[in-house]
Amino acid sequence: MNKELLLAHLRNVPDFPKPGIHFKDVSTLFKNHACVQEMLTEMVRLYKDKGITKVVGIESRGFVMGAMLADRLGAGFVMARKPGKLPAETRNATYLKEYGYDTIEIHTDAIEPDDVVLIHDDLLATGGSMEACYNLVEHFGPKKIYINFLIELCMEGLEGRKYLGKSRDITTLLTITE
Amino acid sequence: MNKELLLAHLRNVPDFPKPGIHFKDVSTLFKNHACVQEMLTEMVRLYKDKGITKVVGIESRGFVMGAMLADRLGAGFVMARKPGKLPAETRNATYLKEYGYDTIEIHTDAIEPDDVVLIHDDLLATGGSMEACYNLVEHFGPKKIYINFLIELCMEGLEGRKYLGKSRDITTLLTITE
Repeated sequence: MNKELLLAHLRNVPDFPKPGIHFKDVSTLFKNHACVQEMLTEMVRLYKDKGITKVVGIESRGFVMGAMLADRLGAGFVMARKPGKLPAETRNATYLKEYGYDTIEIHTDAIEPDDVVLIHDDLLATGGSMEACYNLVEHFGPKKIYINFLIELCMEGLEGRKYLGKSRDITTLLTITE
Repeated sequence: MNKELLLAHLRNVPDFPKPGIHFKDVSTLFKNHACVQEMLTEMVRLYKDKGITKVVGIESRGFVMGAMLADRLGAGFVMARKPGKLPAETRNATYLKEYGYDTIEIHTDAIEPDDVVLIHDDLLATGGSMEACYNLVEHFGPKKIYINFLIELCMEGLEGRKYLGKSRDITTLLTITE
């Protein structure tokens, strides 16, 4: 995978969403199909032999490459959404954010015990939403759960990888330390 | 395209998000790759010769098949998002909803004058969000704009097709009249 190409196209937005945070904007990767192709080729290489039957994308940036990967793997795509968005019966999990709590939901018929699940999101920072999503998917009792991020932030105060735990099967395409 | 397969998998949810509305739940199509394959094959057939360079997906269900289609067409994928979600400079458009107004945003560097754009969303009901998105994309001055929906609702009080106007180049995969 051509990391230099991806890093050259990833946009840094200073002070978003608030002062002091330097936001990694993946939209500049998504709009460039050469970058998408680089990422997907690597993701397919990582997961093509795992028997993935469902890709779960976390709303809403996780829908983009999650959906593309599901198509390339021939797997179904499942939306993990913010509360109140999914119309049928859901399971949900609540997690702590910097200010207060947030909830994530999946339809109760979205995952079966014979599924092999890959959960995808664009960015690993604190790991809170992924941890909640992992625990939620675990309640469906699938055969196996994998985790993938496009980008892992490894900076002071961000210990997402540690938070998610050593036993989890996690891959990230790009690691950013500053 | 096997419409019977798609209609058999599309879930109707009565009284969501409020009494009297029968919601068409595309999540049951997305989770089934045979359905996704049917839809994408048809979408590729419709657009493969149009020279599409960017697919714009409307947040957030429009991200799912929009992203897959962008990948299959070798086009870039652009997110049309709710206000405050995109980190860099944006253009935006405001539109009337049933109760009050809503706004949609696209990054100012997401579309170029030499792009050929396909805007995708899952559902055509009133057409309000698509009309706003079309007008927004038009401001970027691309060569051509196409519109695609998975589902068009043709029911009393819903005149989305008429609202979007006859001059627009619109396709829908499934038309539902009840």
